[in-house]
Amino acid sequence: MNVKIKWLRNQLSSLRLDGMIISNPVNFRYLTGLDIEDATLIIAPKENIIITDGRYVEHVNRNLTIDDEIVTYDSKNISKYDYECMFIGCTNIGIEEKYITYETYKRYLQMYQIELVETEGIIENQRIVKEEQEIEYIKKACEITDQTFEYIIRNISRGMTERQIAFEIEKYMLQKGADGLAFNSIVASGRNSSMPHAEPTDRKIVSGDIIQFDIGCKYKGYTSDLSRVVFVEEISEEYKKVYEFVQEQQRIIANLLKEGTNIKQVVKDRETEYKLKNYEVMHSFGHGVGLEVHEIPSLKSLVDCILKENSVITIEPGVYIPGGFGIRIEDTYHITKNNCISLTKSTKEYTTIRI
Amino acid sequence: MNVKIKWLRNQLSSLRLDGMIISNPVNFRYLTGLDIEDATLIIAPKENIIITDGRYVEHVNRNLTIDDEIVTYDSKNISKYDYECMFIGCTNIGIEEKYITYETYKRYLQMYQIELVETEGIIENQRIVKEEQEIEYIKKACEITDQTFEYIIRNISRGMTERQIAFEIEKYMLQKGADGLAFNSIVASGRNSSMPHAEPTDRKIVSGDIIQFDIGCKYKGYTSDLSRVVFVEEISEEYKKVYEFVQEQQRIIANLLKEGTNIKQVVKDRETEYKLKNYEVMHSFGHGVGLEVHEIPSLKSLVDCILKENSVITIEPGVYIPGGFGIRIEDTYHITKNNCISLTKSTKEYTTIRI
Repeated sequence: MNVKIKWLRNQLSSLRLDGMIISNPVNFRYLTGLDIEDATLIIAPKENIIITDGRYVEHVNRNLTIDDEIVTYDSKNISKYDYECMFIGCTNIGIEEKYITYETYKRYLQMYQIELVETEGIIENQRIVKEEQEIEYIKKACEITDQTFEYIIRNISRGMTERQIAFEIEKYMLQKGADGLAFNSIVASGRNSSMPHAEPTDRKIVSGDIIQFDIGCKYKGYTSDLSRVVFVEEISEEYKKVYEFVQEQQRIIANLLKEGTNIKQVVKDRETEYKLKNYEVMHSFGHGVGLEVHEIPSLKSLVDCILKENSVITIEPGVYIPGGFGIRIEDTYHITKNNCISLTKSTKEYTTIRI
Repeated sequence: MNVKIKWLRNQLSSLRLDGMIISNPVNFRYLTGLDIEDATLIIAPKENIIITDGRYVEHVNRNLTIDDEIVTYDSKNISKYDYECMFIGCTNIGIEEKYITYETYKRYLQMYQIELVETEGIIENQRIVKEEQEIEYIKKACEITDQTFEYIIRNISRGMTERQIAFEIEKYMLQKGADGLAFNSIVASGRNSSMPHAEPTDRKIVSGDIIQFDIGCKYKGYTSDLSRVVFVEEISEEYKKVYEFVQEQQRIIANLLKEGTNIKQVVKDRETEYKLKNYEVMHSFGHGVGLEVHEIPSLKSLVDCILKENSVITIEPGVYIPGGFGIRIEDTYHITKNNCISLTKSTKEYTTIRI
C-alpha cells in the first residue's frame, strides 16, 4: 500500500477512528502524489477509495499503480446507497474540519450517515516534517528564487513600474523551470513598502527609493519564500538603522532555531526587543513552507511549539514605519538536529542599484 | 453608504437577519472593492466593520472613503468582549456556509455568542447579474484571451512541448495587460486531449496532433474563459466528425440562451443528443464567469434555473474518446434580453498549423 496512506491508517487506529474523508487537495496531493482540483480520498475499513469525476478519472488511473491499493470511482456512478455503505459497521470517522465548509460538513452527515470527528490537522502536522525528496524540491524552488532575485536587480531601469518588475520576476521564474509562482510577487517601492502585503502598482521607481521584494515559486508543487530590500542610488541613514535592526533580529532567531527549540520563547524575546525600540510587530516572524507557502508552524508567541528536525520554515522579521517605509528580510530554512540552514542564499549586504 | 452594502442590508432585513459576517475574499471584494487575502466584513446593526490585520490596515484606510461608511479595526486591538458586543441586541446573524470551514463556524459561535444562520449564497446570487463596469472588465479579459490564442497558434514550432506553449500563453497575457491567469492554462496534445482537465506535460507537438487549449485571464479581477482545438498539419475524418458535432451543440445552446431561458431543459435535450451518439457527458455544458472563473449558474440538468439578463456564462460542450482524443469548444457569453452575445471571438473555422 502507498506508504503515506499506511501511515495515516495507523494514526487513525490510534485515534480510535474507523476511517477518514480527505477533501483538502493539498493533503490529497501529499497522500496520493496526485495534483487534482476535485477529488476525495476515502479511507474506509476495507479499502482506499478515490472519488472524482469524469474530468480526472483517466488521469488518476494513469498515475496510480496496483501497489498503491487505491480504487477509483467516478462520482456519477455512486448511488446514495453506495455512500451509506462505505463506512458500514463503523462508529465514527475523521474529517478535515480546517478545510471542509460548514455546508459540506452537513452534507457529509447526510451522505455517510455516521458520526464525524475533528482530526485536528493530523495530516498537516505530519506535513511539517519533510522527506529528503521534499527538501530537494524546496531547495530547487529556493535556487530558482535566488537566481530570479539576482536577475531582477540587474535589470531594473529608470521608468519601470512595480507591476512591470513583478511581471519580469514571474517570467524569469517560469523560464528557469518553476511550475508557477508560490504567491503573487510583492514589489513595493517608496512609501508603498510600508504595507507588508502591498500589491504591485503602476508607480515608477525613482532615485532614493527603497524597493521591497517578497517572491517565491513552486517546483514540483513545493514552494520557496524570499524577501529582500534594495536601495535605489542611495541609502539614507534612517534606512540603514532599520535595516541593521531587522537583519540583527533574523540573525538572532536563526542562531536559536534547531530541533527541540520552543518557538514561543524565541518570539517573545524578539517582541520585547521591538517594544524597546517602539516598533510594532505587524506579522508573525515566520511560517512553515512546503506544498503550501504558509504552513504550520507559525513563528508566534501564542502557544508553545517545539521545532522538529527536517521541518522547513521562514524567518522574516520586518519593521514598518506607517506612511514612511518598510523593511523585511526573509529566508527559507531547513531545521536540522543542531542548527538551521538557509536554503535561500541571496546576499544580505546593502544592495544599491543604479537606474 | 457603499451601494452594494446598502443592498445587502436590505436583503438581510427581508430575510429577518440582524447582521452578517462576510469572510469569503471574493464576496468581500465584490462588496468593498478591496482585494485582500485576510479580512472580514461585519454588517452589524449600527455599523459596517472591516476587521483585518497589520498587513492590510493601511491599504484599507487608503482605499476607503468616508462615503463608504465602513470602520476598520486591526484584529489585534479587538478583545473577546468587543466581539461579543458587536451583535448586542441581535437574535441571529447570517454566515457564508458555503465558504467558512466547520472549524470557523464553531469559532464564530464562541466568539460572537449568537445564532448563526445559513444565507444560501445571497451574495453569490447577486453576483450573477453584472453591472456595466463588470461586463467591460470581462470583455477586456476576453479580448486579451482572443489575442493570446491568435498569437500562440502562429508561434508553435516543431519540438515545442505543452509546458512551453502554456508558458508562452501566460507571458503573452501578462504582456497584454492581464492581472494574471484566470486558471492554469490547459494545453493538451494528442492522446492527452482525451482528459478534460489535463495538465501541460513535456510532450512535444507532432504532426497529426490535435491540440486542445483552455485558456483565460483576469482583468481588474474579472475573468475570461476560452477553449479551442487546433490541428497539426492535417485533420482526420474522425476529428472532423467530432468537431462538427461539438460545434453544432454549442450553436444550438447559444441560440436558446437569453433572459428567461430555463437552463435545465436546454441541457436535458443536449444530453439526449449525446446519448444517441453514444458520447459520454463528462462535465457541465458551462458556468457563470465573473470575479471567479467558475461561478453559478452551472449549465446542468439537475434543477430548474432561469437565466437572468446581464449574466455572463460560458457554453462549452466537449466530447472525449477515452484513450483517443478530445474536442471542446468554449466561449464566454453575455446574456441579454433577447439573445446571448459571444464576448470571446476567436475563429471556430478548422484551424490547421504547420510546424
